[in-house]
Amino acid sequence: MPCHTSPYVSKGLLCLVQLHSVRRLEGKQLEGGVKLHYFCIKNNDGISISASTGSYGRMRRHPWERAVRCVCGAGDGATAERERRGSPITESSPYEVRRAQELNNLLGPKGSSDAIDLICDLHNTTSNMGLTLIHYTSSDWVTLHICRYLQTKITKVPVRVLVLDVPISDAYSLESVSKHGFSIEVGPQPHGVVRADIYIIMKEAVDLTIDWIHKFNSGTVFEGGDMETFRLIKSVDYARDPETRSLTAAIHPQLQDKDFCLLKQGDPLFLSFSGETVNYEEEETLHPFFINEAAYYEKGIAFHVGKKMMLTIPTVQVQKD
Amino acid sequence: MPCHTSPYVSKGLLCLVQLHSVRRLEGKQLEGGVKLHYFCIKNNDGISISASTGSYGRMRRHPWERAVRCVCGAGDGATAERERRGSPITESSPYEVRRAQELNNLLGPKGSSDAIDLICDLHNTTSNMGLTLIHYTSSDWVTLHICRYLQTKITKVPVRVLVLDVPISDAYSLESVSKHGFSIEVGPQPHGVVRADIYIIMKEAVDLTIDWIHKFNSGTVFEGGDMETFRLIKSVDYARDPETRSLTAAIHPQLQDKDFCLLKQGDPLFLSFSGETVNYEEEETLHPFFINEAAYYEKGIAFHVGKKMMLTIPTVQVQKD
Repeated sequence: MPCHTSPYVSKGLLCLVQLHSVRRLEGKQLEGGVKLHYFCIKNNDGISISASTGSYGRMRRHPWERAVRCVCGAGDGATAERERRGSPITESSPYEVRRAQELNNLLGPKGSSDAIDLICDLHNTTSNMGLTLIHYTSSDWVTLHICRYLQTKITKVPVRVLVLDVPISDAYSLESVSKHGFSIEVGPQPHGVVRADIYIIMKEAVDLTIDWIHKFNSGTVFEGGDMETFRLIKSVDYARDPETRSLTAAIHPQLQDKDFCLLKQGDPLFLSFSGETVNYEEEETLHPFFINEAAYYEKGIAFHVGKKMMLTIPTVQVQKD
Repeated sequence: MPCHTSPYVSKGLLCLVQLHSVRRLEGKQLEGGVKLHYFCIKNNDGISISASTGSYGRMRRHPWERAVRCVCGAGDGATAERERRGSPITESSPYEVRRAQELNNLLGPKGSSDAIDLICDLHNTTSNMGLTLIHYTSSDWVTLHICRYLQTKITKVPVRVLVLDVPISDAYSLESVSKHGFSIEVGPQPHGVVRADIYIIMKEAVDLTIDWIHKFNSGTVFEGGDMETFRLIKSVDYARDPETRSLTAAIHPQLQDKDFCLLKQGDPLFLSFSGETVNYEEEETLHPFFINEAAYYEKGIAFHVGKKMMLTIPTVQVQKD
């Protein structure tokens, strides 16, 4: 039987978060309305950490995100972190910088042999993304196998795999600190709201991830094969007033909630506040996603578009001593 | 023909906001992700104002709400305002207090003969409220007629009328400053997101309100009759840990998005994070609404319940000189 073993997984994935910890963390954080939850797989005791232990209020996503960026060496937070590199961390350092460095010390350092084996970073979104599993690269076979397992087992909502094609060194999310990692997006869910249906989907995805790791570490052979993924092509901004940059249109009702559906020439994209429809003019058919995500307004992103592609992944099995 | 004229409407409702102003204001404010927009009907020039001209960022509802409360003499903001009553307003006074007093001066003073004729306060909500028209009292026949008109004309979404049964003197929303007033809630829409479908519904409601006022001021007789309304009975909180007050359950998937549907004994209310269902135990059948509104978590409200009631409103016609 052909067998592939990642060089990083010579002894199996160092193991499990305790499920009760995940549950407790999620309940707590969700009440506060904060979007991001970090679920880290490390040794048999299991740890689950929150990137934010500071005084951030409800419905404020971005301080967390900056913290994440500081960990990973990109983005605005990272710029601040780079400026401070070599400077002592003091009580007066911005919270995001301090927390980022703590996380990198705890889970990394990024790129080192000491880094944690696998981080799975849990998000939700106002977009109708179903369950979307996001990778930086198309060569992390361990986590791609986990995604394939989730696609097989989860039937209540669509499960898509998105590949950003960004080098890990440029990646800015927490999971890029670990040797293997991916993030999970589930939506639609408004910021500041807990929805039981979304919670149940996320919990199922986490449970199945742990299930896969158990099986892998127990010697199960996971057969290779083809899997459907989406590759990020580019972002599209809202229609805006050229001078004031204020919105002049919203996502068209025919595009709203149609994440991952096919977008073809002539399809409506935006409906202006004065009633005109703006259509998709390009010849290439693509798949929009993250349509109308609340956190992306300020980034100038109305939605992303991606292209469907098939990936072939090898069979994997833990390496025996 | 029987004819009723409100004592406040002896010369007709002092007239119109310019539609383009409403449109411009909405576009601008929606981009910022702020929820509240004030639409004021006053004289032939028309004015449309925003309660927030301060530096409040996106997705922060509460500063606005405090400003509104200060105007109207109730709630936390009003407490602050009362404490400062008689004190000069300075640059260092909290923004909410300054803006509240400006609004009361501009649109009121509340309860005086100088107060503006009609304020319609536009909100959106994360709850699946369709188009809900909210009144403090069941005796404001002018605005109840407007609501009845909206119920007749709008067919795309359900249009419900909610009566809070709170004396105007205790009311804390901006529309209570005017002689007549009601607020409009449209949902579901996440905070910080513009949805074209929601925008279109709100615009239709505003257009029809102006249409009604035009007709009323032109002498149209609006026949009285019965109308279905919901009366607020009480609020229900989320299930919480008695010590930490953190949530132990979310709205049950079978209740989520079922605003204004009938709630009867044995129906599920919450699903705990450990998987148990909490049912509705009371004998009285009621109608839940504002289910899972993001802004109500911190107020200890998972949803309100109301009772359906029929109101009989008289015929109204403008009083001729």
